[in-house]
Amino acid sequence: MQRTLGTCYYPEHWPEETWAEDAARMADLGLTWVRIGEFAWSRLEPSPGNLQFDWLERAIDVLHDAGLKVVLGTPTATPPRWMLNKHPDMLAVDAQGNPRKFGSRRHYCFSHDGYRAEAVRITRLLAERFGRKVEAWQTDNEYGCHDTIYSYSDPARAAFRDWLAQKYQSTEALNRAWGNIFWSMDYDSFDDIDLPNLTVTEPNPAHALDFRRFSSDQVARFNEAQVATIRQHSDAPISHNYMGRIVEFDHFATGRQMEIATWDSYPLGFLEDRLEASPEHKRRYARQGDPDFQAFHHDLYRAVGRGRWWVMEQQPGPVNWAPHNPAPLPGMVRFWTWEAFAHGAECVAYFRWRQAPFAQEQYHAGLLRPDSAEAEGFAEAARVAAELKQMPDVEHTQAPVALVFDYASAWGWSVQPQGAGCDYFRLVFEVYRGLRKLGLSVDIIPPDTETLAGYALVLAPGALTLSEPLLKAISETSAQVILGPRTNAKTEHLSTPVPLPPAIEGLDVTISRVETLRPDMPIPAEGGGAVKLWFEQLDSTEQMIEETEDGAAILVGARNLFYLAGWPDPTLLQRILAQRAEAAGLAPQVLPQDIRIRDTGNTRFVFNHGPEPVTFNGQTIPPAGVIWT
Amino acid sequence: MQRTLGTCYYPEHWPEETWAEDAARMADLGLTWVRIGEFAWSRLEPSPGNLQFDWLERAIDVLHDAGLKVVLGTPTATPPRWMLNKHPDMLAVDAQGNPRKFGSRRHYCFSHDGYRAEAVRITRLLAERFGRKVEAWQTDNEYGCHDTIYSYSDPARAAFRDWLAQKYQSTEALNRAWGNIFWSMDYDSFDDIDLPNLTVTEPNPAHALDFRRFSSDQVARFNEAQVATIRQHSDAPISHNYMGRIVEFDHFATGRQMEIATWDSYPLGFLEDRLEASPEHKRRYARQGDPDFQAFHHDLYRAVGRGRWWVMEQQPGPVNWAPHNPAPLPGMVRFWTWEAFAHGAECVAYFRWRQAPFAQEQYHAGLLRPDSAEAEGFAEAARVAAELKQMPDVEHTQAPVALVFDYASAWGWSVQPQGAGCDYFRLVFEVYRGLRKLGLSVDIIPPDTETLAGYALVLAPGALTLSEPLLKAISETSAQVILGPRTNAKTEHLSTPVPLPPAIEGLDVTISRVETLRPDMPIPAEGGGAVKLWFEQLDSTEQMIEETEDGAAILVGARNLFYLAGWPDPTLLQRILAQRAEAAGLAPQVLPQDIRIRDTGNTRFVFNHGPEPVTFNGQTIPPAGVIWT
Amino acid sequence: MQRTLGTCYYPEHWPEETWAEDAARMADLGLTWVRIGEFAWSRLEPSPGNLQFDWLERAIDVLHDAGLKVVLGTPTATPPRWMLNKHPDMLAVDAQGNPRKFGSRRHYCFSHDGYRAEAVRITRLLAERFGRKVEAWQTDNEYGCHDTIYSYSDPARAAFRDWLAQKYQSTEALNRAWGNIFWSMDYDSFDDIDLPNLTVTEPNPAHALDFRRFSSDQVARFNEAQVATIRQHSDAPISHNYMGRIVEFDHFATGRQMEIATWDSYPLGFLEDRLEASPEHKRRYARQGDPDFQAFHHDLYRAVGRGRWWVMEQQPGPVNWAPHNPAPLPGMVRFWTWEAFAHGAECVAYFRWRQAPFAQEQYHAGLLRPDSAEAEGFAEAARVAAELKQMPDVEHTQAPVALVFDYASAWGWSVQPQGAGCDYFRLVFEVYRGLRKLGLSVDIIPPDTETLAGYALVLAPGALTLSEPLLKAISETSAQVILGPRTNAKTEHLSTPVPLPPAIEGLDVTISRVETLRPDMPIPAEGGGAVKLWFEQLDSTEQMIEETEDGAAILVGARNLFYLAGWPDPTLLQRILAQRAEAAGLAPQVLPQDIRIRDTGNTRFVFNHGPEPVTFNGQTIPPAGVIWT
Repeated sequence: MQRTLGTCYYPEHWPEETWAEDAARMADLGLTWVRIGEFAWSRLEPSPGNLQFDWLERAIDVLHDAGLKVVLGTPTATPPRWMLNKHPDMLAVDAQGNPRKFGSRRHYCFSHDGYRAEAVRITRLLAERFGRKVEAWQTDNEYGCHDTIYSYSDPARAAFRDWLAQKYQSTEALNRAWGNIFWSMDYDSFDDIDLPNLTVTEPNPAHALDFRRFSSDQVARFNEAQVATIRQHSDAPISHNYMGRIVEFDHFATGRQMEIATWDSYPLGFLEDRLEASPEHKRRYARQGDPDFQAFHHDLYRAVGRGRWWVMEQQPGPVNWAPHNPAPLPGMVRFWTWEAFAHGAECVAYFRWRQAPFAQEQYHAGLLRPDSAEAEGFAEAARVAAELKQMPDVEHTQAPVALVFDYASAWGWSVQPQGAGCDYFRLVFEVYRGLRKLGLSVDIIPPDTETLAGYALVLAPGALTLSEPLLKAISETSAQVILGPRTNAKTEHLSTPVPLPPAIEGLDVTISRVETLRPDMPIPAEGGGAVKLWFEQLDSTEQMIEETEDGAAILVGARNLFYLAGWPDPTLLQRILAQRAEAAGLAPQVLPQDIRIRDTGNTRFVFNHGPEPVTFNGQTIPPAGVIWT
Repeated sequence: MQRTLGTCYYPEHWPEETWAEDAARMADLGLTWVRIGEFAWSRLEPSPGNLQFDWLERAIDVLHDAGLKVVLGTPTATPPRWMLNKHPDMLAVDAQGNPRKFGSRRHYCFSHDGYRAEAVRITRLLAERFGRKVEAWQTDNEYGCHDTIYSYSDPARAAFRDWLAQKYQSTEALNRAWGNIFWSMDYDSFDDIDLPNLTVTEPNPAHALDFRRFSSDQVARFNEAQVATIRQHSDAPISHNYMGRIVEFDHFATGRQMEIATWDSYPLGFLEDRLEASPEHKRRYARQGDPDFQAFHHDLYRAVGRGRWWVMEQQPGPVNWAPHNPAPLPGMVRFWTWEAFAHGAECVAYFRWRQAPFAQEQYHAGLLRPDSAEAEGFAEAARVAAELKQMPDVEHTQAPVALVFDYASAWGWSVQPQGAGCDYFRLVFEVYRGLRKLGLSVDIIPPDTETLAGYALVLAPGALTLSEPLLKAISETSAQVILGPRTNAKTEHLSTPVPLPPAIEGLDVTISRVETLRPDMPIPAEGGGAVKLWFEQLDSTEQMIEETEDGAAILVGARNLFYLAGWPDPTLLQRILAQRAEAAGLAPQVLPQDIRIRDTGNTRFVFNHGPEPVTFNGQTIPPAGVIWT
Repeated sequence: MQRTLGTCYYPEHWPEETWAEDAARMADLGLTWVRIGEFAWSRLEPSPGNLQFDWLERAIDVLHDAGLKVVLGTPTATPPRWMLNKHPDMLAVDAQGNPRKFGSRRHYCFSHDGYRAEAVRITRLLAERFGRKVEAWQTDNEYGCHDTIYSYSDPARAAFRDWLAQKYQSTEALNRAWGNIFWSMDYDSFDDIDLPNLTVTEPNPAHALDFRRFSSDQVARFNEAQVATIRQHSDAPISHNYMGRIVEFDHFATGRQMEIATWDSYPLGFLEDRLEASPEHKRRYARQGDPDFQAFHHDLYRAVGRGRWWVMEQQPGPVNWAPHNPAPLPGMVRFWTWEAFAHGAECVAYFRWRQAPFAQEQYHAGLLRPDSAEAEGFAEAARVAAELKQMPDVEHTQAPVALVFDYASAWGWSVQPQGAGCDYFRLVFEVYRGLRKLGLSVDIIPPDTETLAGYALVLAPGALTLSEPLLKAISETSAQVILGPRTNAKTEHLSTPVPLPPAIEGLDVTISRVETLRPDMPIPAEGGGAVKLWFEQLDSTEQMIEETEDGAAILVGARNLFYLAGWPDPTLLQRILAQRAEAAGLAPQVLPQDIRIRDTGNTRFVFNHGPEPVTFNGQTIPPAGVIWT
């Protein structure tokens, strides 16, 4: 497969007479794909039923004429103002009870049937007109961005009640499942159940978890309605552009509906805005982004797309939305592009073609400046285009390490963290980072994975409820498997199973007590390093591999199966991972702090994420440097 | 009196066939008391008027059959969901105007007459059925927990207007009392007066203070209605279980209504969540709790109960609700129990018998694990039970030191702190800690105390308005008395008396100016230490005992009467307290940092609160160690 | 002109029989002016139409009889409670949608026509009665205090729509101006446009900016209505008392309506509450106030008043409203008074005559204590009064340096900061401080200034859109001119001009990229110091005066015109300013950190703002010391 480049373009922002020149410059630059249309509803339908699709057809034609392919986005993330007059109650409502008003984007509640019908209608009209014309589709834009999954609106409340009635059939069953007897929280009627906001103290965790499941289902339902509509008129692949560290809905569920997963990669914005890290770390990587954050999402969305994935929006310069928005180190735009290809991206599209001189994202760089001069990312994209022609394709292959990622566990940890800082994404990401610092390539796998064939090392930290297929796969694998902390510790209702968890076949381990720790009081491990934040007391007859200085179990194991009782700090994590990787027949090597490796079928990529040159294996890699062999 | 142990049990959470075994194990463990029922309304009355009391009777019988005594709680902290259908406006409303919804507990407004009638009704029904059967009562559960004293609901507004009309009789009187002329805030009608939330800038402090007085009165009225109802059918003692550092209502007012005061002692949760302390302090005591916080509340609730008090809920392992929830140091469950007995507790009951595997408190340890195996606290409780049999009873006696605690002063400081960090509880607690670090045992006394007979040293820091009886008692005592800072500085309407305060008979002191200080700019005292946070400029002809390096008065005195012009840091506080204690004929000794002493009529207890052994008076006390002589 | 002293007095707070003695003491102290009446509406009109002006006439007579002059305030900042019964929707609404209730002050929405009519009515009645009797007027009180400029009420929404319709005439024009196509934010009707609060993510910056312009206009309209009313009945000068660092409305717009600008100077409160500064800085100046904050406002309000300005409220001791409220260093009350005179104040009035013993400001010092004894500020005021008699008047003159201050730029930066900490006031104030640390006296000038004649050095940092007159004045001046960062970078709709800014005639500079920086990653300048927070990449052929260590332009220039590409730290700023000042023929000198100089026509004042004596030019100046020569 030939890897390609692309960009995001807004013909409706620019005079029609400039489109052809833009298209020509895109083609000259070596781009293949152009995404358009996803915010253009007010130009496509300026008033209800008044369809104005001709300009879009002309824009597509201009792009096609230049040899470019088109991804057409459904414009449902930005319903026009007149939509609100038709559906005054379509807005989402925040947890404080305030409607989230018109004036930016994503101003709709996933549970509003009227708006969903409108979204299907515009999608149908677009698919009818352009279904055989465009080369790919995108549904909506960045589900979940701006905290838009949870809505506390009346339609959401009604839909939640229906969802619960469908799921539990009787309030007796619901009361039992949730443990409502605890504080006399029993319900006699589904119509008495409210959304779990504004309760006096924390709501029942089972109540909160079901609301999160429901909210995720509403996203999947909304997306599926668009996908099914497009399918009736188009054979082109369909995608959605996910964001970084959005865990409020199950991306595997929407991912199954579509051919391709894409995501929007803003390394500098994410480092500033969405990552727990020390100030030193944030300063060191301020112009390069975190060394593992993009790779994690590349691997995650490769799983969501079942192998097919893109970067739909690649940061090409400073952005506008993080607490601070520095410029990337020269070379990083190329670096990020190659990193995506190394992880298997089919296409990397830069956001956006030309920087906008108006509205919310004026200081968000494009490949062009607002005056159409080339911005700094332009030449870097050109270099990648040239390099792509000269190198053989990146052959993708299964990685030796599998890491489970489970959205429902993210919800469970969030609902019931038991301690400040105890966050599922953070835990899994730290394990991922630990694997990468040992030079290992990783596949992220969904929680309903049915076989672990081909993996030498498997981890499922924090996965609260292991699925039957995965439990079976674990029992059958000969890979080294590390479970814990908190793996399989919960029922699907977030209650504690009795007999006590984790209930892993072949492993005599019981979690007899949980404690959470102040950041300043880690528990030292006998061999160095420490357990931090989360620690379980185990009852176990298995061999103790790691223990605290006081002799409490940290890691116990039997055969190829191991249970980790706490959240390891980097030192302890490295020792544990290195031992298990060696036992798995892998060759872990401790990399210099800025170096990361990605192995594909035919190529080893080595990336220097640091601001200084690094000598590695005899080669000096400059800042923003990537080498492949 | 024989000190006893108990536990909190929820028969409604467990299969009836397991009750008898539970009861037998409780009895075997050496427990005497079992509290039940306080969250069970939805099982006692599953629908309006549908009373299901038989199971409760059977549960009581099972406990009685095992030789256990029962405390029956009224279930009014957890009205069932159907109650909301009867009284849709019964919810409290938060300061932002949002109803505090059903789905956890304490979801009622103290001013809602309809709900109060329901609370009385269920109380009456329980008292009629079980009044002669149970050995003690508890009203409701943890008034004030989850910030539930203040409600900004319509019923609260109406009740506040009535309360003001009763108190002032005319708006002219109210306008004068509040000083409403200040910003044209005068009222013509009580119906024009709103609750003091959401004002443009701070409301009139007198308005805010009256709202707090009113809110406290509403709690007392609510509690009294239950108490009076129980009294009609039962001679058993009545109690309420207070929480730690809840100062939003006057516990002395509710305390006077009942025979016994109890409180819920969670040393580790309180340290993390409810105490101003350095990170170092929080880390050092993370597994033991603050050395003075529990003792303070023991002494406080002994006063609230006029000598009769219990720990109704004793932390037996990690809890679930603080920012971090570590496990106690081994031995601390016994340690905390003995500390309570040393301060005079009649009973210490562990919360809870068995850890719940569902709903909000799943990670809150019990004496048993969810699978009924013994948790760590079990053996420690057993040890206390054995020790109790072998030692003579702890004879209680009056302490040599009296420290005034006044809830209305807490409200006054909160309404008008004049500086960040200026908090009444914090001030009184720091003085209490200072006394304890000198080895002194303390009685906390209410603000309307009429005699100080028997005390050698008396303190009333921050008590804004001294009552006539207390002023008289001060003028008559020969004890060493330290007043200030801010003692008697305010009228009951939180205005400044003219002539200027503090107006203490026999002491020529005038507060001519108040200033508050940044934490990083304490004012050094001539003899070492410093004044922090709060400092008053005094006009005084009295002898200057302590002064700043610039010669401003810090402590002045006449005869046995002293006035302290500022908030002393620990060094200055220790010097002042030690001097006064010596003058009072006491023998203060500076204890090692982790050691605390409690003297009773026949026993001296010495506690090591630290994580390491401490040698004290020739004896080495281990961590979590207590010795008595 | 003879500089005068004054005070703020509330006869309605005190028994009438004490007024004469108060007046006599004021006169004895050497005061000239007394401001009264501004919060007295409830006494002037206790019920609708029930006018009670006689007491006010008697109060004025008493003051006049003592030889004092009177400033009469309109009482419109404190409408009585009955006003709400007439106009229930007159309250402002906060950004969360909650009405900002009665119970303190400033509880009105500027867009409520009914309340504006009431304000005009009471103003008219007062002007009719006292227009020929009092010597000066004040409108309302501290517009904008307590965040009261922005209101999200229904009347505000309706007025905003009207304002937009007037401004744009068609929604097509508005859509184009705002760039609403960006996210399909187009409007078909002005009635569809909402206020820009509670949007899902940030609203269109042009939308937000227009709301700020509108809100500022509403203040001007409200004030003008009072001014026009007073004018019909009085020839006395009219003023308003502004606050410190309130930038939410354009003070130049209201300033043009009146003869005199006044402001309320609370140096210690402002330091604690309204200034970005290190803890060390806040501690060092905790008892003196920031060395430049008062001077900045003196110079700003001198511009607002077109030369005529007062301090209407001067802090005379500790205040009550900052996070911490220490007492001033002895001598500071005199010091602050002389500082104001040195900057040209006609009068300095102390707030307040007597400390109030009730309501919200009880711990706010007055010249007298609540018991009428002299407070510490009293003697200092007396000293100033004596000094004023003995020294010649302070002749005011134009300063050599002009610094543009533009309220609309403050709104633009606030709407679109691009990075945390990027604030317009902060930037301009840091430049002002830099000038002052070089011993320079500064005139602050409005953004529509038409000539720069007489200035040797001109700066306009951060002024987003330079007006045509100012651009012309810059092109004509021979003064050294420093523009940037971000100067003239925006259109009036906060969009980016194409061709790219800054578009300064005679200077070939283009801002090709903007980045914002973490506080911990300043970009070092080649000559020392650094750029922080905000940095622009320039395309320029002009001479590079300052550059980064990497060779990027920081300061470029042509002839006398310079552009500064980033936010300089103090070291870099000092170097740039010193060079330009020298080129301008000024004699900059680096002052000791606590010393500031103010030159007037006939006098040089030297102020020591530090807590220790400083020797400067051979003279030792004590703490709180000022010398003049």
